This record gives sequence, structure tokens and C-alpha cells, in this order.
Amino acid sequence: MEEVSRPKEKTMEEVKGFVRRVLLFKFKAKTAPDHVKKLIKDYSNLVNLVESLKTWHMGKDANIENLHEGFTHVFELTFEDAEGIAAYMVHPAHLKFHERISPHLEKIVVIDYKPTSFHT
Amino acid sequence: MEEVSRPKEKTMEEVKGFVRRVLLFKFKAKTAPDHVKKLIKDYSNLVNLVESLKTWHMGKDANIENLHEGFTHVFELTFEDAEGIAAYMVHPAHLKFHERISPHLEKIVVIDYKPTSFHT
Repeated sequence: MEEVSRPKEKTMEEVKGFVRRVLLFKFKAKTAPDHVKKLIKDYSNLVNLVESLKTWHMGKDANIENLHEGFTHVFELTFEDAEGIAAYMVHPAHLKFHERISPHLEKIVVIDYKPTSFHT
Repeated sequence: MEEVSRPKEKTMEEVKGFVRRVLLFKFKAKTAPDHVKKLIKDYSNLVNLVESLKTWHMGKDANIENLHEGFTHVFELTFEDAEGIAAYMVHPAHLKFHERISPHLEKIVVIDYKPTSFHT
């Protein structure tokens, strides 16, 4: 992922060669914190099981403005291309994980996109 | 940003040295597409005006599952630390931009977090 900050001359253009999926989760209140941890660990393990999933990151909300709309966790997954996401969607490991986590989610947002960045 | 995929042995740990802000926007229908473009360009220019803002990326939703909840744009901003976000929040260039874009947003979600990743 190419990231260039404060270039002298800049244009906006597509970052070549990968697509990203961002997900926001709000877990149900009844799901125990330890089970949330276990689910997240299993989620991270998909990077070992699904060839087209290249990187996996997560974080817990620390926004101080109260603009999180109840979402507590953010996940960033990267794939080489849109076909990589399509392959992930139907991969048995993903489908199995999806089935396990879904009952614990109160709400979810998913956005797929090709990042646009600065380049000199 | 350190990103390691499919390590042989892995642990989850905090990615050192930066915090990230993810924002999802839904622009109002009445805001003209050309004006959305201009606002986004001005947004990207904050990386040139605010010292603590290190990188800026954006993308338009291409999710095929219809889980975007109406959000159309995603933005990823990185800062060196939480103090960097605090400095950004009160920076005159950010405040001015915030005032300009707010009337055009139907909804927004903001999540700040320290990414956790895989490391071998």
C-alpha cells in the first residue's frame, strides 16, 4: 500500500493492486467479552485459511466525539482485487465463521473499495 | 504500517506508532456530485495543512452484499498518536472544512483506533 504524505505536487489517483473491505461491528450485549475475544481471534485466523485474504487488522473504537453510532469494533481486510473478495465470500472457512459470528452481531456495516491516495 | 500476512507463528499485538480514524459518509441527495468531488478534494488537502495528519485515503463503496447501510464513501486518516488526533480536531483548517462539509452529510460514523495486526 503506497502512502505518500504532504507531497509537493499532488494528484488523486487509485492505489493500484488491492481492494479493501472495512467492517464496523456492534456485538450484542448478551455476548460475553471472552466470547467476543475468541470470535475475533478466529476472525484473524482467516488470513491463514483464505488465500485471497492478504492482510487483516482490527481495532476498538476510541473516538471521543461520540460519533461511533454504537459500533465498537472496526476491521480492515485487504485483497489483491475484486475477484479476491468474491473468492473470500464463498470460501468455506469464511462461510463457517460467518455462521458462527452472525448471531452475536447487533449491527454491521460493510464497505468495499479501492483506496484513492496521494501520489507525487 | 506493518502488515504481515500468513505468518508461520503469529500473535496479535498492537501496531506501534500510529492511530487511525475511519469515517463513513452518506452525502445528502441534494448535494450535487461536482460539489461532492470538490469537498473530497478539499478534504484530501488537509494532509498538506495539518502537521499531525500523516496519510489520507478514501474510497467509494463497491460492496455487493448491500451491507453499506446507505454509506457511500469511506475515509481513512492516520496520525502518529492520540495527541495527533486531538491536534487535528482543533486545527483551524479542519474546523473550517468541518463547517463546510457538515451541511452536506446525511449521516456519518467515525471510529478512532489503534490497529491490531499479526506479527511473526
